[in-house]
Amino acid sequence: MRNIKLTLEYDGANYAGWQIQRTGRGARSKPTIQETIEKTLRKILQEKIKLIGSGRTDAGVHAAAQVANFRTNSTIPLEKLQRGVNALLPGDIVVKKLEVVPPDFHARFYAKSKLYRYTILNRSVPSAFLRAQALFYPYKLNLSLMRKEAGVLVGRHNLKSFQASDKKVSNEVRSIKYIRIKKNSGIITIDIEAEGFLYNMARNIAGTLIEIGRGRFPLGSMRCILSFKDRRRAGPTAPACGLCLMKVNY
Amino acid sequence: MRNIKLTLEYDGANYAGWQIQRTGRGARSKPTIQETIEKTLRKILQEKIKLIGSGRTDAGVHAAAQVANFRTNSTIPLEKLQRGVNALLPGDIVVKKLEVVPPDFHARFYAKSKLYRYTILNRSVPSAFLRAQALFYPYKLNLSLMRKEAGVLVGRHNLKSFQASDKKVSNEVRSIKYIRIKKNSGIITIDIEAEGFLYNMARNIAGTLIEIGRGRFPLGSMRCILSFKDRRRAGPTAPACGLCLMKVNY
Repeated sequence: MRNIKLTLEYDGANYAGWQIQRTGRGARSKPTIQETIEKTLRKILQEKIKLIGSGRTDAGVHAAAQVANFRTNSTIPLEKLQRGVNALLPGDIVVKKLEVVPPDFHARFYAKSKLYRYTILNRSVPSAFLRAQALFYPYKLNLSLMRKEAGVLVGRHNLKSFQASDKKVSNEVRSIKYIRIKKNSGIITIDIEAEGFLYNMARNIAGTLIEIGRGRFPLGSMRCILSFKDRRRAGPTAPACGLCLMKVNY
Repeated sequence: MRNIKLTLEYDGANYAGWQIQRTGRGARSKPTIQETIEKTLRKILQEKIKLIGSGRTDAGVHAAAQVANFRTNSTIPLEKLQRGVNALLPGDIVVKKLEVVPPDFHARFYAKSKLYRYTILNRSVPSAFLRAQALFYPYKLNLSLMRKEAGVLVGRHNLKSFQASDKKVSNEVRSIKYIRIKKNSGIITIDIEAEGFLYNMARNIAGTLIEIGRGRFPLGSMRCILSFKDRRRAGPTAPACGLCLMKVNY
């Protein structure tokens, strides 16, 4: 039995996220990324496939390199499998790479850190091409203040203020390795690499940094928000369309 | 009465082109770009609007800077009009710029040249993000041969071999100012600037260059194709999704 690792790119706009997040299907009409890939693999490999993702991505969130793995008895050559899967998958999900990995490899448990990028189209007019891949935000943002305040979050902290308020975990301490904010021809990117992310953490940090850049929180406020350990003290959750999982490190 | 010039960006994937191209509506279910913008302007300005485009773009073809103009009795400030139009238009059409121009300005008759870009994703795996903005072409292409043969087309020539076979015009002579082929991280762009384009000309040149790069036409064949003045001698029409109108020069 082979253990196969997939590197995936997807445009999350038409999906209910990687996996069903809350209380089952309900009124949900969009499929999930996970079930779409599982079904395709099943069709080709003629066996039930259980796909393990490095973590869930929310409805509307994208990935440039999500990682997943599954086990199979099939001996199909990987190149052939990749071509077949990409031919059958809808165009907004692509298998970029397939590798055989050691039997114990687990996409979630083995992940050491993840890099998320939040993208903001920061100019006066929207874009027809980036409408589903960036947050359109036409107001002036003070990047140097955003960078200064983002620096406060780097390191090991209790990040409860940035966790979705309806979620509970036993330990909200996470390690942020860096937050890098860049601007290039009207596009601002906020790169956040951390050993782990709480639910909605990347979007809540991005939303708070945008409020800071807009001047709605004064210099020094990030330290206060962090110390409150209260979601209500931070900024709003930035929209899903701007978020992309860029890399999972093992 | 003001004459207003618009600079437009659009993702053509969901449209039947700039304007109805052939025999009226028929079974066509997608709207045109032109009628979508006219309707929106009419709603805001409360008068009938006739939008003149610099030229038609086919179904599925994109624009980074299409130009159009219309006349209006309204005295609404342009900034307000732009905000209103962009708020009401679907997200895949954006008015990037609005300017008052002299009364005689005509988007089509005044156009001196146009720049079209054909984009090819030339790597082994497709892209979830570029799927509607580039032609996915996983085979090796000989760029230096493509550049050499493209050079033959530069200048003033009868380009009948690159005109859609079901179209007739009184004069097929057009001036191509340059054709530039670049490759950057798996993305090939073919930029064609010409004083005028015959119907399907940009896509037929791109399709022929791809065949040349793939080795299906030998060195020197472009000169022969050109001299035949016969559409059947050139390569196939490259798919619409890869084409984008980049600039109209006045």
